[in-house]
Parts: sequence; structure tokens; C-alpha cells
Amino acid sequence: MSKGPNLTIRDVAQSAGVSVGTVSRVLNRNETVRAEIRDRVHRAIETLGFSPNYVAQSMRSRTTRTVGCIIREISIPPLAAFVRAAHDVLHEAGYALLLTNSEGDIERERELLKRLSRRQADGMMLGLYTPSDAEFDDFLLTLNVPIVVVDRDTPAWADAVMADHHHSTQIMTDHLLTLGHRRIAILTGREDMFPARERLRGYHAAHAAHGVAADPLLMRTGSFLANSGFSAMSELLGSRQRPTAVIAGGIDMLSGVLKAIRLNDLAVPRDISVLGTGDSSLAELYDPPISVERWDQGEVGRVAAGLLLDRISGHAPRAPRHVLLPTEFVLRQSTAPPG
Amino acid sequence: MSKGPNLTIRDVAQSAGVSVGTVSRVLNRNETVRAEIRDRVHRAIETLGFSPNYVAQSMRSRTTRTVGCIIREISIPPLAAFVRAAHDVLHEAGYALLLTNSEGDIERERELLKRLSRRQADGMMLGLYTPSDAEFDDFLLTLNVPIVVVDRDTPAWADAVMADHHHSTQIMTDHLLTLGHRRIAILTGREDMFPARERLRGYHAAHAAHGVAADPLLMRTGSFLANSGFSAMSELLGSRQRPTAVIAGGIDMLSGVLKAIRLNDLAVPRDISVLGTGDSSLAELYDPPISVERWDQGEVGRVAAGLLLDRISGHAPRAPRHVLLPTEFVLRQSTAPPG
Repeated sequence: MSKGPNLTIRDVAQSAGVSVGTVSRVLNRNETVRAEIRDRVHRAIETLGFSPNYVAQSMRSRTTRTVGCIIREISIPPLAAFVRAAHDVLHEAGYALLLTNSEGDIERERELLKRLSRRQADGMMLGLYTPSDAEFDDFLLTLNVPIVVVDRDTPAWADAVMADHHHSTQIMTDHLLTLGHRRIAILTGREDMFPARERLRGYHAAHAAHGVAADPLLMRTGSFLANSGFSAMSELLGSRQRPTAVIAGGIDMLSGVLKAIRLNDLAVPRDISVLGTGDSSLAELYDPPISVERWDQGEVGRVAAGLLLDRISGHAPRAPRHVLLPTEFVLRQSTAPPG
Repeated sequence: MSKGPNLTIRDVAQSAGVSVGTVSRVLNRNETVRAEIRDRVHRAIETLGFSPNYVAQSMRSRTTRTVGCIIREISIPPLAAFVRAAHDVLHEAGYALLLTNSEGDIERERELLKRLSRRQADGMMLGLYTPSDAEFDDFLLTLNVPIVVVDRDTPAWADAVMADHHHSTQIMTDHLLTLGHRRIAILTGREDMFPARERLRGYHAAHAAHGVAADPLLMRTGSFLANSGFSAMSELLGSRQRPTAVIAGGIDMLSGVLKAIRLNDLAVPRDISVLGTGDSSLAELYDPPISVERWDQGEVGRVAAGLLLDRISGHAPRAPRHVLLPTEFVLRQSTAPPG
């Protein structure tokens, strides 16, 4: 059996007398594993001094001084700002950035992960669309490279940085409810993705605090994209029970929502109140300026790159680090009491 | 002396009996070289079958299947769209993209070029801020890697892709002159950079065609950035002889110009006509929608990646290829006759 820095998940499995899959399930805090087995695995992990990201870090003998980055779409401005900031930190440390664009395609993401690991990237920054489940987390383990997860659900063993979408969406929803809105639409991504689920959680929390029941027909999930924002908004505005306010819950979605509103000849905020997610020139210079949830995408990039460099260089603690960055509500002139 | 695929600029110099610098000046069509010397160098080039990009392509024995890309600022949306399209073509061909961000800093650009060539990138896509002069073109030659230049002045031996900014700026200026404007401001980058110089050329050509003298005080060059657009526009609006129209001649500049106009409580197009460069959600959804020079940044990326892959794979002709992509004028509601 390997010792110290050459440990793998297989050594843990052997030491605990269980399968590799079981170790993986325990590492990912899967509740289906019996408590007794969990304890055995944890004892083995402790005895051996094992931590997957930590092990991946110390096992890599040959360094390439490159870091891979997989995101959905580099041409979305806030994601470009994230990449730019991460690049600067990596560049300063002498690392080059291998950038890829997954288009949110799950097959492509797996292929990109394999390619980057074949190229022996020293670490990877991942903002994936593939849901974090047991099978996929196992797959990530087999890549044997330090990773940092960006604004996504994270395997329990991996480093991560996220923005607090729950907090700002709760405040935005509360703001609309306080103005008197009772039909507040929210358009956001798939519910199994961190930013979407957190926004919905904030939306529900505010409704609960006001004792207002949210209409399920006003929650449109499935995509963060501008085109989907346009279709969902058009559909909502064509329905009999129109919303009086909308939260565009995706960084690329506001333009689509505003186009649908304009096409329906509605005025913001007289006919409909609008809130955006992520700041932009469009939100700032629109007439009226649009209130938004804002967070620092540059900071997301800097923290992600910093966590990964710590991990690669061996300066990170063994335990994974999860950083939650604050968001804020920027109040402009796009909301008013319902007409 | 090396033969065939192992030729370098040194072999050409030796064969012609001149210095390496002289060969470089001839390759870059520098007029300061005497005709007799030029002929000698050209004969040597022909006899040896030399072409720098071609030689760089065939000399590289070890391939890394990576392509380096140096641009000013990944977080400017049109540049991100360029990177995204180039990435897709490269990815399809099995190449990874090493992305860097130069911030338009000349020292940093040289360092990035050295780093990428040390990493043995198989080719490089360059949208640099460093002016193309004899010394710099020599430096590029010494890197000995195929390059494609993007929307910049190009060493005569290198492949390139550019957008036809001259054409669209001439049309935009003509449109304003036809409406009756006589004080048309143009804000754009340094005059020694291709997009800025071409825009100014179009601006002057339209004035000449209308027999109108352009006021030099209305031409503000030096930067393509939004902040500079804001300062230059604020200054112009604070001057005694205000412009009645403005062309924001940088892909990132429109937001700064619009902010300055708003801060001065002026209405578009009643008080001032505004034209932008490069389309965006802001231009499309602003009230009123802003007319712009538009070109396909995705196509720029696809063509640049295609030219480079041809060069890397040895499928390109020996002679460099320069592709000029069309631009168009998208007429919206941001112009009117001067008040």
C-alpha cells in the first residue's frame, strides 16, 4: 500500500475493507452509506492522512505550470470578468491559463475534463453544468488533479468559491413584496444548480416571511440564458394572470427580459417592476436604470485562483475550503408599487 | 547553411550578404532599404524558398497542440466573443487555447510573447497594443512561431485578419454630414493602431467628399476605453463649441460616452446624435436605440483560428494571407438633424 503523499482513494478503500465507490460516497457525504461503514472509512482516512484534493496536489510529480478553466460561455461579460481576474492572479504566479468553453453541454464538459487532465494541468477551475452526483464526483476523483469549484454544488472534498445568491434574492423579493407586489415572477436556471436553487430559496424565504403564497406558475427554471429569459417573459406577459414584477435570475438574462417587455409595449416600472442579477452597462444606462443583485466577479476569480494556487503549491490546509462571497442589492429606479 | 524546412532569417542574411536587421526591414517592406539591397534579399529569399511564417511552421518539430492568444482585455464583450469563436475552431481541431490578457501594456505584451514561445505554443493569435515597427517585427521573427495578427497593422510576412473600419466609419460620417451636422466628434484609439487610423481615414474621406473641413479639436485619439470615452466626451460637452454629433470609435466606449451625455442632461438625438462601434445589448436596448458600426467578432475569431491552423498544419500557401472582413452600418434612432 502507498504511504503519505502517494495515497489514493484505492488505499483508503483497501484499508477500510470497502469498495472505492463506498469511499467516494462517504467523501461526498452521501447519506445512503451505513453509519458503521462511514465510521470505518473515516477512521481509515484519518489513520492514513488522506484528503483527495490534498493527495491530488502532492501526487503530481511533473508540473506544467498551467491551470485549466472550464466555464459555460466566455462571451458572457461577468464570466469574462471572472476569467480576467483569475488570469491575472495565475499570471502573477507564473501560471498560464488554458481556457475552455463548455456551452453548458454535459458530454463536452466530460471530454474537456479528460483533455485537461491528459495535458497535465496542475489544477482546474470548474464552473460546470454537469450536476454534482455520486457518479460524476467519482469521475472527478479519478482525474487526480486539484480542483476549485466556482458557484456550483461542490464535492465535499473539493475547494470552492460561491456568491451568496440566497441573501440578495431574499432582499430583492422582500423589496417587491413590501411595495405590494403579490405576483412576482422569477426566471432562473435549473433547480439542481447552485445559483438557481439559492435564488429560489431566497424567493421562498421572503414570501414565507410576508405570509404570501408564491404562485408556482411564476417560477420559470431551466436556463440562465437571455433567449430563455425572452421566451419565458413573453409567455408570462401573454398569460391571463400577468406578473406585476419580475426577477431576471441569470447574469445573461436581463436583455432578453427587457426585450420581451418592450415588445409588449409595457413601461418599467409603471406596468411591471424589473430586477436583474449581476450588474452591467445595460442595467446602469437603461431608462429607467435597473436595480440589480451585484457581486464582484473579479473577486470570485481572484479567490478561486488563490485557493487553487495554495492547493497546487502545497500551502493549503488538508481540509477543503469553501468561500461564500457577499452579494448586495443595488436599488435604482426599476421598481414601483403595482399599478 | 540550413536547407529547406530548417531555414531561418540568418540563412537569408548570409546568402544575401547583409545583416539580419536588413532582411527584416526588407520583409517588412521598410522603404529605407536601398533598391539594390532589396533585390539581393528578395533573390536570396526566392532561391532559398524562405517565408518567415512558413519557416516557423515547418521548423517546429515538437508540437504541443496549444495555441496562445494575447489580447488587451478578455472582459470586453466583443473580445470575449472573438475568443469564444476562436476557441471553438481550435477545440474542434484538438488544440487548447492559452489565453492571456495584456491590459494594453507594451512591456507585459513582450513578456507574454516570450512566455508563450517558451511554452512552445504551436501558434499565436495576436491583438497587441505594441506598435508594429522594425524593432518589434524583428522580435516577433525571433520567436520563430507561426502567428496571425488580429485587427492590427501586420508585419508583411504574417497572416492577418481585420475588419473594414474605414468603410463603416465613412458611411457613418457621411450619414451625419447628410443630416446637416458640421461639428462631428470622433473618439478613438491611438492613431498608430489599425482600427483607430482606419476610422479616422473614413471620417476624413466623408468630410472631403462633402467639402467640409473637420475641426481637429473634435478628433480625440489615444484610447479605446469607456473611461477615456467618458472624459473626452465630458470635456467636449463642456467646451464652448460643442459637437452636435459623436462617433464612439471603440468597442468598449459607448457606455462612457452615454454616461457623459446623461450627466450633462442632454437628450439623444435631440441635443446630440450618437453613433457606436460594435453592437451590444446596451446599443440595442438604449432609449433611443443607438445606431452602430457592426461586424461579426465571431467571424474574426473563426477566420483567425482557421488561418493559424492552416499555417500550423502546413496547409497554408507560403505567402501570407490577409483577410479583410466587411462591416455594416446599423441604422437605429440615435441620429437627427442638428438642433
